Amino acid sequence: MQLYNQRDWLSRASVLLGTALVALSLAGCAGAGSTSAAQPVTAVTSDALPSWRDGTAKQAIMTFVGGVTREGSPSFVAPAERIAVFDNDGTLWSEQPLYFQFLFMLDQVKAAAPSHPEWKSNPAFKALVAHDYPALASHEKELLQLVAVANSGMTVDEYDKTIRDWLATARHPKFKRPYTGLVYQPQLELLAYLRANGFKTFIVSGGTIEFMRPWTEKVYGIPPEQVIGSSQVVRYELRDGQPTLTRLPKIDFVDDGPGKPVGIYRNIGRKPILAFGNSDGDLQMLQYTASGSGPHLALLVHHDDAAREFAYDRQSKIGKLDKAWDEAVADGWTVVSMKDDWQTIYPGSKP
Amino acid sequence: MQLYNQRDWLSRASVLLGTALVALSLAGCAGAGSTSAAQPVTAVTSDALPSWRDGTAKQAIMTFVGGVTREGSPSFVAPAERIAVFDNDGTLWSEQPLYFQFLFMLDQVKAAAPSHPEWKSNPAFKALVAHDYPALASHEKELLQLVAVANSGMTVDEYDKTIRDWLATARHPKFKRPYTGLVYQPQLELLAYLRANGFKTFIVSGGTIEFMRPWTEKVYGIPPEQVIGSSQVVRYELRDGQPTLTRLPKIDFVDDGPGKPVGIYRNIGRKPILAFGNSDGDLQMLQYTASGSGPHLALLVHHDDAAREFAYDRQSKIGKLDKAWDEAVADGWTVVSMKDDWQTIYPGSKP
Repeated sequence: MQLYNQRDWLSRASVLLGTALVALSLAGCAGAGSTSAAQPVTAVTSDALPSWRDGTAKQAIMTFVGGVTREGSPSFVAPAERIAVFDNDGTLWSEQPLYFQFLFMLDQVKAAAPSHPEWKSNPAFKALVAHDYPALASHEKELLQLVAVANSGMTVDEYDKTIRDWLATARHPKFKRPYTGLVYQPQLELLAYLRANGFKTFIVSGGTIEFMRPWTEKVYGIPPEQVIGSSQVVRYELRDGQPTLTRLPKIDFVDDGPGKPVGIYRNIGRKPILAFGNSDGDLQMLQYTASGSGPHLALLVHHDDAAREFAYDRQSKIGKLDKAWDEAVADGWTVVSMKDDWQTIYPGSKP
Repeated sequence: MQLYNQRDWLSRASVLLGTALVALSLAGCAGAGSTSAAQPVTAVTSDALPSWRDGTAKQAIMTFVGGVTREGSPSFVAPAERIAVFDNDGTLWSEQPLYFQFLFMLDQVKAAAPSHPEWKSNPAFKALVAHDYPALASHEKELLQLVAVANSGMTVDEYDKTIRDWLATARHPKFKRPYTGLVYQPQLELLAYLRANGFKTFIVSGGTIEFMRPWTEKVYGIPPEQVIGSSQVVRYELRDGQPTLTRLPKIDFVDDGPGKPVGIYRNIGRKPILAFGNSDGDLQMLQYTASGSGPHLALLVHHDDAAREFAYDRQSKIGKLDKAWDEAVADGWTVVSMKDDWQTIYPGSKP
């Protein structure tokens, strides 16, 4: 997981578009999707991706989907094998100034602090209190441990409620709107377009399953059982005779970087034919998908839109350039420019 | 996991029906299934479960499915929430004389033995060589460790091939036919019936994901991404530039007993409304499902058919009576008698 995406996010965020996001208008984006194969793609394309501008990226997607659904062609892929995996942070929704889940976690740690005087000497906690994000980024592991302690002992239902409550009330510091309003409209269209062409769409994220599952079905049309993510250990027990799952202060699985192909293997059991990411956290998932012997498509979001979102280019971690970019260029993966390829960024926002 | 299901399996197995299984006739059982809700159940029921005899079990299933699909009724459940989970060993296919996966693992350990002279003093290995199944059962953990060592270092593709090869050639010691021919015909019908009524069907098994995924889609109509099981740790790495997943000699997750609700939570993220098991390995999954606040159905296979399968009643572990049985009786779960409720046991076998 990458804690901190940009050193000078405050100054850059100040140039963001100030237009208000209207209520999410997701009609037509979260439909169940037919699983029938070989629909004539040309018939739905013009309507299916209206927020994608004509260009090489849109063309690559349409050509790929047209090929895998064309029965009898060498590029045909059986519907059961049409697995598409999407990173979440920075690929399906924004991730600035910090991963939204981290903002939630920081609130959680702050709330738990009074019960943990021992944290006062913890470097991650000190950085948190001081709002020193670079220092926090260099103590990522310590921070995750604080988070695990902060929510351990809760039942999964209690934890679910804290997440839903936070999502319902928290607002993005700059956009002043709910975080679930900061999903990318072109990706909502792409997800629906893929499902209409027989794909099964999955999220494969470094974020935790609990933080995504309460809203991914409504917003993305992706049900909980198709959300793969990081997780904390939970234990089954009877409490007063009632079956209960309780969170323990231990990280179970980190679904990031080399963990992503492992997560795909464990939860899906087939190699995807389409993968969409945006940073080094997605590099191995993209490599893995691109190593398929049949048709496949690897895509990378390029954050180059300072006016409408953020422009942090290939630097998603402090002082480090994403290698995924080099590999995308070298291997001919499809780079998607937010500035050039997307007509609209957020649902309901102006082009 | 329970290694050994019956002390005197040899004597009991000798009374098994000797009728030959013809080639699996699964037409109509592995269909993709519509996800549309609220089909008039009465229209399909009479054809859908022909291998189920009329009785309280069949009636309980039909009443339950009729209720959850009846739009506008208090028992209606939205299609997205219609999650059905099935144990595999002893619930969807036979598990005698030993779990079929154990028979595969024993072959694997034997094949790897020449490279491991240190195993000679290992109690599990000694029991294995001596065909001392009770002793093996009391060294279950040591055996699992041998198995993990035996297949570590393999890529997941290599391991997949050893399983497919074994399944293609191995024959059941008594029935002399492929193990995948020992699935239960009534359950194939039930799986298809549930899917036709908008259910999503999952396997939740103590067996490993690798041992089930090569055949569950073809035989049960359950795709790999809906197979939850035990797993070994795998690691992503580039070998000569090629993305590879390699098995490490470490158990990752045991999806049995209290692990089953945890596996359901991790991989599905919703509480099932129908669970079907047969032993204490399924007790917690059944409890968890039965604790739902809405409509739910918990079912237990009763192995009471010495003539057509095996009769080991409620003793699936040596010297221990399954508690699941007591709980089924106390809580009003539906007990399914193989002898009384099932017209046919295996596909193509005589009633």
